[in-house]
Amino acid sequence: MKYKLAPELQTSHWLNTETSLTLKSLRGRVILIEAFQMLCPGCVSHGLPQAQRVVETFSRDEVVVLGLHTVFEHHDAQGSRAALTAFLHEYRISFPVAIDSPSSNGRIPQTMAAYGLQGTPSLILIDREGHIRKQSFGRENDLELGAEIMALILDNQPANVPDAPDVLDKNRCDDDGCPIS
Amino acid sequence: MKYKLAPELQTSHWLNTETSLTLKSLRGRVILIEAFQMLCPGCVSHGLPQAQRVVETFSRDEVVVLGLHTVFEHHDAQGSRAALTAFLHEYRISFPVAIDSPSSNGRIPQTMAAYGLQGTPSLILIDREGHIRKQSFGRENDLELGAEIMALILDNQPANVPDAPDVLDKNRCDDDGCPIS
Amino acid sequence: MKYKLAPELQTSHWLNTETSLTLKSLRGRVILIEAFQMLCPGCVSHGLPQAQRVVETFSRDEVVVLGLHTVFEHHDAQGSRAALTAFLHEYRISFPVAIDSPSSNGRIPQTMAAYGLQGTPSLILIDREGHIRKQSFGRENDLELGAEIMALILDNQPANVPDAPDVLDKNRCDDDGCPIS
Amino acid sequence: MKYKLAPELQTSHWLNTETSLTLKSLRGRVILIEAFQMLCPGCVSHGLPQAQRVVETFSRDEVVVLGLHTVFEHHDAQGSRAALTAFLHEYRISFPVAIDSPSSNGRIPQTMAAYGLQGTPSLILIDREGHIRKQSFGRENDLELGAEIMALILDNQPANVPDAPDVLDKNRCDDDGCPIS
Repeated sequence: MKYKLAPELQTSHWLNTETSLTLKSLRGRVILIEAFQMLCPGCVSHGLPQAQRVVETFSRDEVVVLGLHTVFEHHDAQGSRAALTAFLHEYRISFPVAIDSPSSNGRIPQTMAAYGLQGTPSLILIDREGHIRKQSFGRENDLELGAEIMALILDNQPANVPDAPDVLDKNRCDDDGCPIS
Repeated sequence: MKYKLAPELQTSHWLNTETSLTLKSLRGRVILIEAFQMLCPGCVSHGLPQAQRVVETFSRDEVVVLGLHTVFEHHDAQGSRAALTAFLHEYRISFPVAIDSPSSNGRIPQTMAAYGLQGTPSLILIDREGHIRKQSFGRENDLELGAEIMALILDNQPANVPDAPDVLDKNRCDDDGCPIS
Repeated sequence: MKYKLAPELQTSHWLNTETSLTLKSLRGRVILIEAFQMLCPGCVSHGLPQAQRVVETFSRDEVVVLGLHTVFEHHDAQGSRAALTAFLHEYRISFPVAIDSPSSNGRIPQTMAAYGLQGTPSLILIDREGHIRKQSFGRENDLELGAEIMALILDNQPANVPDAPDVLDKNRCDDDGCPIS
Repeated sequence: MKYKLAPELQTSHWLNTETSLTLKSLRGRVILIEAFQMLCPGCVSHGLPQAQRVVETFSRDEVVVLGLHTVFEHHDAQGSRAALTAFLHEYRISFPVAIDSPSSNGRIPQTMAAYGLQGTPSLILIDREGHIRKQSFGRENDLELGAEIMALILDNQPANVPDAPDVLDKNRCDDDGCPIS
């Protein structure tokens, strides 16, 4: 079975890190990308706290957690670097966070579009060779996520096939997430 | 026992209502004011959901719930009307929300200063005659809050004496009322 | 409006109190009766903790909380005084608890039958004159319960009409409670 | 590194299974043993629900979950098969549960003593070859547990070293195994 190579991040700015990061420079480690928006209730109540738990559970030598601020709605309210900086401070998010590059001709930012994310929160797992091994939208279960990360740490194919991305037809955020309308 | 008259709200804008509201125009009903900031985690996780539960539990003829956006930090990030509008939409907050008027020479907005609030979330209960009967900062217990609201609905003094407002500035408010500073 | 006088408790034993209690002897105070079974998940997860919160929120001079162990199923497992004693100890329940008297010719114990309770947990509120003012089965909301108790403390009719007892057709415990089948 | 062989279960009865089970007969699969008591609040609120989540997350071909009722207090209240049967029914626990054999001269039942468990809930993970790989007392984190189980499914040593069994009696177990006491 072949996996798709994860597209490189397109970012306009990084927070919580002194230097910009690339997926390529992190090759060799498992990467978890938490795509979120600061005004997405499901990101605040479960996506981001779960990403923070991953940081606290696994060694940074094995697993790197990156936040990706994929603003696709309310650009005026959440599109500024100042707003995101304040948000990360108040919610005590310690891992590096990139601002996804705005697209020139649409509202979906570039990395979000390249991965075809369905909304926020979305979670992407990338293996040590840089392949996408899981991509999901909405609420994730810790027990299953822990198992999936360990499978990648041990450099094996997950015993559990990754969740098939659901097709969503909702146009508004609910407790689980904010879909692209 | 005499209670202090609640200072009138000083607001720069109202959301979720077609007309501006005043405490005076709501006289005759019990008023709950939920003072919050959109980037305050405790407001998002318990203050605002509790205020929304009050809306759903009591008749609007008896109890009016008002939000008060008292931005005293991160003005760049949460000080705009656009940001607050997006926040209220995403968090499905249905009750009227006022933006507290910025002060001319300091970071504490005017209504927040007039009440001497300690931070966010803060909760204020005002009786049918316009007196402050509870003012508290931090997490509130639903059972106690339900009892306090009912005591005010029934227009009697609570059997449980309401929490004494901790930081009410005695130079600003006297037994007859709290003049705007 | 007239309310029904609360039938006296029929009990075989009391725990957490040195003397047996009667509703009559508590006249003048508001009484909350929490009817439960020790093997009922909804009683353990929300009914009993809520009753304990009522103990901690209101003065015992105003509100008395009584537990009533109404065993209507699994008599072998939960019918003994030893089992209930251990349960109250482990769950740190401090208020007085009565064991409802077994019926001579059926499985529903006597007080439970006299009140026509639908299952466990059930909550009964009795006013200062000994009238039933609320009787409900399942999960109760703290905000509403706090309001109802305060209305009775202040000796007035509740502004919120008590919940109409639902008709249940389930035969097994769920997260909210255990109905009589 | 060598791991201790898991002592065989000493049981007086099995529930939720038609035949008695032995660790030996399950060799080749990962085994999670959830040691609990029915009147232990921590078992009811998190230990048993977590074990049930493991059942629902992993394939039974890979991971077998067993409950072990290790009654070491309140024997009168929770020591009967009828009581445990009612409990499992009401809490909808579907996995096989063994009653740990009472000891002849003490209060700690035999399997509990053989493993040197500290109390309930305790969680034991056994690898495909029958070795103890984790033994812990108290609340466990789902993310970490998911990772540990996957490490054993993939038949590798966990990247996170499993918690050292705190109180395993060195006089009872040696590097080759733990003889039944």
